[in-house]
Amino acid sequence: MEFAKQYEAYLKDINEELDRISAVPELLQKSVFSAMQYGLHGGGKRIRPVLTVAVCDLLGGNHQDAVKVACAIECIHNYSLIHDDLPCMDDDDLRRGRPTCHKVFPENIALLAGDGLLNLAFELLSDTTRYETLSDSALVRLIGAVSRASGAYGMIGGQVIDLESEGLADMTLERLLELHRGKTGELIRVAAECGCICAGLEKNDEKYQKIMEFSAKLGLAFQVKDDILDVIGQEELVGKPIGSDAESQKNTFVTFMGLEGAEMELSKLTEEAKNALSGFWQAEFLLQLADYLLTRKY
Amino acid sequence: MEFAKQYEAYLKDINEELDRISAVPELLQKSVFSAMQYGLHGGGKRIRPVLTVAVCDLLGGNHQDAVKVACAIECIHNYSLIHDDLPCMDDDDLRRGRPTCHKVFPENIALLAGDGLLNLAFELLSDTTRYETLSDSALVRLIGAVSRASGAYGMIGGQVIDLESEGLADMTLERLLELHRGKTGELIRVAAECGCICAGLEKNDEKYQKIMEFSAKLGLAFQVKDDILDVIGQEELVGKPIGSDAESQKNTFVTFMGLEGAEMELSKLTEEAKNALSGFWQAEFLLQLADYLLTRKY
Repeated sequence: MEFAKQYEAYLKDINEELDRISAVPELLQKSVFSAMQYGLHGGGKRIRPVLTVAVCDLLGGNHQDAVKVACAIECIHNYSLIHDDLPCMDDDDLRRGRPTCHKVFPENIALLAGDGLLNLAFELLSDTTRYETLSDSALVRLIGAVSRASGAYGMIGGQVIDLESEGLADMTLERLLELHRGKTGELIRVAAECGCICAGLEKNDEKYQKIMEFSAKLGLAFQVKDDILDVIGQEELVGKPIGSDAESQKNTFVTFMGLEGAEMELSKLTEEAKNALSGFWQAEFLLQLADYLLTRKY
Repeated sequence: MEFAKQYEAYLKDINEELDRISAVPELLQKSVFSAMQYGLHGGGKRIRPVLTVAVCDLLGGNHQDAVKVACAIECIHNYSLIHDDLPCMDDDDLRRGRPTCHKVFPENIALLAGDGLLNLAFELLSDTTRYETLSDSALVRLIGAVSRASGAYGMIGGQVIDLESEGLADMTLERLLELHRGKTGELIRVAAECGCICAGLEKNDEKYQKIMEFSAKLGLAFQVKDDILDVIGQEELVGKPIGSDAESQKNTFVTFMGLEGAEMELSKLTEEAKNALSGFWQAEFLLQLADYLLTRKY
């Protein structure tokens, strides 16, 4: 199947599952479920869940189980966006062209909706009745991998380094890399790792390591592209004001190595990601995914 | 062993484990680990982890494993306190006589420390290397029970009902009970449930049901007592301003049924909790725990 059609097919499965898990029940606290649903349905490329499902498919695992696991990761991604946008964080009014969660709901409900989505990820991953093929052992591995990637050693750690790097005069490349390994990279990497676990691949398998290398490079490339788009993207496509990084004195790959340097870094990372897969599979979809992320407009 | 000594012994084990899990690593993001540690070390009665360990001990499960599971629950409790105290929530400056987390750390670090503690609970519960006796199946059960209790159907739901009940003119007893079942009750109940799971008790076992009944009543009694202490407690013992509920127009058991009515409700719930255990065990510690919570000054 050609890339765009395959991507659409993945998106359809993922969005249907996201609809199911974000249905709003008729409870006294329904506002928080609505805010969680709002957060989950802001569109976006769904790159993390697509990666989980595509890796699992490549390795011959159960597709539907991978879709369900993938949506738990998407919950974590969207919780992080809600919290990132809050007034005490980046204080953003727009995200993907829509008002941010705390602009539509009261700020305290948005905060709790973020908490709710983080929590929901683990409710979903521990609900044994959802899965056809995943053993308790696989579920514990998934929960372990996801929670470490999203926690203070992973994504939360990256967010902290990001906050504490604003306006920093003596930024280093090492610090910038560690920032993005955590903030963006770890969740993208673990999305691929979850695909491996869904398919029953063991950690010491060489293929496992190759997919980890692919997804770690891909995650970094993704962030470099984000930094580039914040400078030369089209506002109506990106869905938020261009130049917001510069305004908040963020250190980015562009401020650090210039636009041309960042473009070169992006190409290099994308090539390295693709090379990690060579010789192992007919991984056509993943290779094209890397190129798609390289050339994306938003 | 007499009650006070047993409680001290439990506290010692729990606090030692909390020290271990909150050690601050030398990483770029160390500020968030410090804020997490600060949040975890505010003292308090540690009622939830004590309950987990005491129930597991009563049922003959592995004590050290229960201590480790118990500390994950304490992480969730303290994350909820950090977020509850934030300016967009209750905006509290003091908690147990200490400045709240966002008064000591920047507000965004406090927010992320809360996220970090919630996340840490699942990192701890899914780390199979920590436990001597717990199977993957037991860990998945624990994660499922804890995540449902702390999520939008449980504690987060209760927090939302609480926020949306401030100043509500037509508060009902039904709503007040649902509020507190979620906000306080569920995490106390699940703490006891985790003790059952650590000890390998199956859900359809009559003893399981009895312990659930005990802990659900205990959790509600705990909240009624909190509401009473907010009216007649001693500020230096309670560790925060007396009358803060009234000031923020909270509906409490005292505003709803008067001080005398609340005292009667508290006694009734405590008796019911204790009765749930009668005839099953020599559950001396849990019975005295119920009495201790009934008569506590803070």
